[in-house]
Amino acid sequence: MRYSKLFSKTSKEVPSDEVSKNAQLLIKAGFIHKEMAGVYAYLPLGLKVVENIKQIVREEMNKVGGEEIIMTALQRKEVWEKTDRWSDDKVDVWFKSKLKNDTEVGFGWSHEEPISEMMTKYIKSYRDLPVYVYQFQTKLRNELRAKSGIMRGREFVMKDMYSYTTSEEEHKKFYDSTIQAYLEVFKRVGLGDITYLTFASGGAFTQFSHEFQTITDAGEDVVYLDREKNIAINEEVYTDEVINQLGVDKAKLEKVKTAEVGNIFSFGDTKSKQLDLNYINEAGESVPVILGSYGIGITRLVGVIVEHFSDEKGIMWPENVAPFKVHLVGLNQEDESIKSKANKVYEELTNAGIEVIFDDRVETQAGEKFSDADLIGIPWRVVVSKKSGDQVELKKRDSKESQLMSVEELISKVK
Amino acid sequence: MRYSKLFSKTSKEVPSDEVSKNAQLLIKAGFIHKEMAGVYAYLPLGLKVVENIKQIVREEMNKVGGEEIIMTALQRKEVWEKTDRWSDDKVDVWFKSKLKNDTEVGFGWSHEEPISEMMTKYIKSYRDLPVYVYQFQTKLRNELRAKSGIMRGREFVMKDMYSYTTSEEEHKKFYDSTIQAYLEVFKRVGLGDITYLTFASGGAFTQFSHEFQTITDAGEDVVYLDREKNIAINEEVYTDEVINQLGVDKAKLEKVKTAEVGNIFSFGDTKSKQLDLNYINEAGESVPVILGSYGIGITRLVGVIVEHFSDEKGIMWPENVAPFKVHLVGLNQEDESIKSKANKVYEELTNAGIEVIFDDRVETQAGEKFSDADLIGIPWRVVVSKKSGDQVELKKRDSKESQLMSVEELISKVK
Repeated sequence: MRYSKLFSKTSKEVPSDEVSKNAQLLIKAGFIHKEMAGVYAYLPLGLKVVENIKQIVREEMNKVGGEEIIMTALQRKEVWEKTDRWSDDKVDVWFKSKLKNDTEVGFGWSHEEPISEMMTKYIKSYRDLPVYVYQFQTKLRNELRAKSGIMRGREFVMKDMYSYTTSEEEHKKFYDSTIQAYLEVFKRVGLGDITYLTFASGGAFTQFSHEFQTITDAGEDVVYLDREKNIAINEEVYTDEVINQLGVDKAKLEKVKTAEVGNIFSFGDTKSKQLDLNYINEAGESVPVILGSYGIGITRLVGVIVEHFSDEKGIMWPENVAPFKVHLVGLNQEDESIKSKANKVYEELTNAGIEVIFDDRVETQAGEKFSDADLIGIPWRVVVSKKSGDQVELKKRDSKESQLMSVEELISKVK
Repeated sequence: MRYSKLFSKTSKEVPSDEVSKNAQLLIKAGFIHKEMAGVYAYLPLGLKVVENIKQIVREEMNKVGGEEIIMTALQRKEVWEKTDRWSDDKVDVWFKSKLKNDTEVGFGWSHEEPISEMMTKYIKSYRDLPVYVYQFQTKLRNELRAKSGIMRGREFVMKDMYSYTTSEEEHKKFYDSTIQAYLEVFKRVGLGDITYLTFASGGAFTQFSHEFQTITDAGEDVVYLDREKNIAINEEVYTDEVINQLGVDKAKLEKVKTAEVGNIFSFGDTKSKQLDLNYINEAGESVPVILGSYGIGITRLVGVIVEHFSDEKGIMWPENVAPFKVHLVGLNQEDESIKSKANKVYEELTNAGIEVIFDDRVETQAGEKFSDADLIGIPWRVVVSKKSGDQVELKKRDSKESQLMSVEELISKVK
């Protein structure tokens, strides 16, 4: 795409109430727009990043057998009353409103209840199980404060998946395969090295739930890390008993600040009992379905990636999530022959199937073009200028070295 | 995909309050789930249809220069007060709620205001224009009644695009290119023959707005149709003066019921003045931006398609929007050799890049499989059975004739 056509130009200004690094950088670089505290619109570049992450998550969820659906924002009171989560005393993040006939409705801050209630229609017999469903949903949460940019919003995108199985064994098998799928997701988005499977507090049915915690100073959590064993313990369950139980060495544990990017949870049959979600087993008896829930904060991931992959100049997107692969900078574009050369490189890269943002501005100086490229953070910067002659100049965003090469070499290098 | 893995089985039951044909068929066929009146979740098959339509619309909007973004559901009161559309007296479909600090917030029923207000940040000079942006947004509207299934919902997906231009001429050019893009969209989704560019009431700046109206008894509108000239007049502007002005012959006009699937509207500089959306022109003066808005009801389109493309047996999806191209029915699957043959056909079609839903159920009778296939409405039905021998039996959903052929012939025929 041509930068001259992109409306979301870079800017030096950020809203005065914006204190988080992730939102500041994303606003400056033109990825997001702040509508109010904790509520952000995604502009062309930002939406591309979100869609790239969604596609990675989608592929991994499909691999474990997930079926994609989309539930609704509007929520019925009766459903949530069954699990005692309608009252504001029990759940303090509800947005609520009323239909014209005065019926109270809520706006979805989570979807375990409506999905599970819907499943009472589709799950009747052991033959209908297992079922694994997921969605990418915009969650609405009436948070008291929202100061972490896109890492904790009042409106944000989450992937939530739910598993419905016949038995604890079947559940455990899926739960474990999801742990692997999640680790693969975090690896693919570039956070594999700093994201840890973390033991956290469980519920009525399991001692632990599991979180996926990514090391970042911008996080709100604290975990104790065993880098060798590749696991962590959330401080909420950090006791000598748990340390012994997990077989880790207390002396080696490292206390770090983290952000929770995913969590998975076993409900056993608790929710199924509340919602009358039963099935007829092979013996002909009616028994409750076993339920698990599996979340990944999609827009939070964008924020965590920016917190981690950035320097004083701007963002440095990992290749798999970057909105474009190549940032083509055309210099000296007032010179028709260099302009036509830059246009030709743009076409050749595009024809080779490489996603390119092409800074084709004529009246903008080289310095501004370079600082915009650094701010936006596309992995490969390619310069066409008077100086580059018949070649192009390639530089990685996170490197200081640049290299002259032919367009053919460039294509084989970045593709 | 294997039908045995799809959780959203067909069903004979529909909610007792569901009176619309589109929702009844989509619920029976397992495409949607009714959460409450006018609020539907989209299950795997339904989501695929929605995504297919979105992709067609996306391609056409990109062709006219649209940039995709996504705005927020949560809305600030101040923004809507500027255009006098916050008050419930002025707009009677608002859902509203409050932040913890008692600040009132609304839920987006439209997005002209927040997008245009955001543009005050990005549009400063004539050099920043034109800008064309669009989104696929879930709109929330507190409708008094919601009885038309997914054709008029309290929660629904809309594509809304906005154009920001320097002059009426530039605006007109884009407006006209969007008319062509819209006609192409309706053609591609299968409604081209029954969808008409319709003259409807305008506003302060233009005598007419334009709607795209599709002939259907399930619609809520009435238009007067000139089939020869391929245009229609909404009854709201149906006067002798307008008839003369448009040069149509009153005697030839046909009164029909229709559903509005798209509409486009010129705002001139009205909204820009209200929202202080100005730019510096080439003469150095600050002048208001010219604004246009362009909507397509994505989920409404799904409903209209079902109303039109269905018979007493079920849905008949047009190829471009169908969730799968082929419905492969394996009969006699208790016979291992036929089962393995059906599996082989499934693999061959899939490997050829054809999207297939494979009814691999073993204990289900042929009659039920056929009636499920008719209900779901995939364009091509392929049967593998004892009878089909080394061939397969191909039938179009809307035809009674079936034909035996080899898998190779099948692939070249449906691809």
